[in-house]
Amino acid sequence: MPTPPQIISDPTAMRDMVRRSQRSGMTVGVVPTMGALHEGHLSLVRASTRAYDETVVTVFVNPTQFGPGEDFDRYPRTLNSDVGKLAPLGVNYVFAPASDAIYAADHSTYVEPPSVALPLEGECRPGHFRGVATIVLKLFNIVPADVAIFGQKDYQQSLVIRRMVAELDIPVDVHVEPTVREADGLALSSRNAYLSTNQRTQALAISRALRQATAMYAAGEKSASPILAAMRKILADAGIDEIDYVAIADRETLQPCETIHDDQAVALIAAHVGSTRLIDNMFL
Amino acid sequence: MPTPPQIISDPTAMRDMVRRSQRSGMTVGVVPTMGALHEGHLSLVRASTRAYDETVVTVFVNPTQFGPGEDFDRYPRTLNSDVGKLAPLGVNYVFAPASDAIYAADHSTYVEPPSVALPLEGECRPGHFRGVATIVLKLFNIVPADVAIFGQKDYQQSLVIRRMVAELDIPVDVHVEPTVREADGLALSSRNAYLSTNQRTQALAISRALRQATAMYAAGEKSASPILAAMRKILADAGIDEIDYVAIADRETLQPCETIHDDQAVALIAAHVGSTRLIDNMFL
Repeated sequence: MPTPPQIISDPTAMRDMVRRSQRSGMTVGVVPTMGALHEGHLSLVRASTRAYDETVVTVFVNPTQFGPGEDFDRYPRTLNSDVGKLAPLGVNYVFAPASDAIYAADHSTYVEPPSVALPLEGECRPGHFRGVATIVLKLFNIVPADVAIFGQKDYQQSLVIRRMVAELDIPVDVHVEPTVREADGLALSSRNAYLSTNQRTQALAISRALRQATAMYAAGEKSASPILAAMRKILADAGIDEIDYVAIADRETLQPCETIHDDQAVALIAAHVGSTRLIDNMFL
Repeated sequence: MPTPPQIISDPTAMRDMVRRSQRSGMTVGVVPTMGALHEGHLSLVRASTRAYDETVVTVFVNPTQFGPGEDFDRYPRTLNSDVGKLAPLGVNYVFAPASDAIYAADHSTYVEPPSVALPLEGECRPGHFRGVATIVLKLFNIVPADVAIFGQKDYQQSLVIRRMVAELDIPVDVHVEPTVREADGLALSSRNAYLSTNQRTQALAISRALRQATAMYAAGEKSASPILAAMRKILADAGIDEIDYVAIADRETLQPCETIHDDQAVALIAAHVGSTRLIDNMFL
């Protein structure tokens, strides 16, 4: 049984720990999370502990990435249970700061995220990626790890972070790990906890629509519009009628594709099931 | 005679050099400049070489901090002469990147600077501090020095950088060194090179107005408005009629002061002499 992780709340102490490890020649991976950890997060953590000498998991529900009326207040906060899940995995540090250690009351410096933040989530959640980019930059400065691991589930987020890292010369490698799904296809998400049994069944239509897209593409359909129509029909048949977007887009720019080229497109969905907003994506 | 500085243009090579020095236990200071070095810059460089084991001077005319119609094209570029001035000072590295090593053609990630960027220069030069904050953050990531040295001449810039560093958790100490002046009071600036002999004489009114402010305050005047009136009269008498601002402001927030408290205020001027825009400031 590995040593349980050390829980650190002070940013300066956290940075000193990482630097000490690096000075002694160790590599460090960081997995930024908002807590409420599930198997998806744990797969990112395992990817880190497998490949790097030390692993830091950050747990911080970042207020600046939630819009007015979004679920900041009800977002699950389960630090003790999170640490319990990380303990068997060989995580070295959990960085769990208080909110005021991260944002002073008069905080006013933000990252204006790269243009890949503009479509899709950027249109539905104005300011979301500004908050994401800002907290991730801050965390990279507090936890100056060699590598940061993110999940493909938040695909546009992973692009925003990759571009930000490149364009601001941030000295970290960004790795993106595949989405983890339940046996029936539902992508793991901390927000699945909000779903009733019926809503959970309804939510399966999202991954079903994405699988339909990959199947049609694999069967030779290279035009986006019939695939998008089939995806929308699957959502409608399941009674999902509040759809933020159903898209087939370039994997790097997220600009919509009309004709799909090999290894260049991703299908993405954002939709509301009851009061819960879910997102998912698959490569075509 | 010290070894001449090594000139580095590649960001990754630059970062590796700084890290190697730090791993061997050395402290590193960085002096970010746009080149066209004068005694003001050299005083920052000497402050670094005196206090830290190694010193990096960056030379980059940053396009994103110039507005449309400003002097980006005519800004002096004098790298050979700059390196000549640095050679006797014991500078270890000059980082002089090509523009496309810093900004890709599709660059779109910026720093939204702290609120102290909004008044004064922020009103006169929209976008200026966004460009400054972005390039300084990038340079801190490329040259991860222990300490960065800036001049008080660009006082608002020094506040913007200090607040950005604090709010984004950037691991660097920011030091601000006093403004260097000619014997007759003119603050050194790369833009003084644009002034004709007559304009240079006219420009002296700026430092004269600031000295008048410090003299009135030292003589007991605690109200800003008579001091501002005296400053404006000195500029007007010298024929300087295109004034961007004459201000007495809080040293931390740059909000205007009506009543001046000890060690809390700074007097600032921005004005045009011919086609040259000059700024200067003094603490009250």
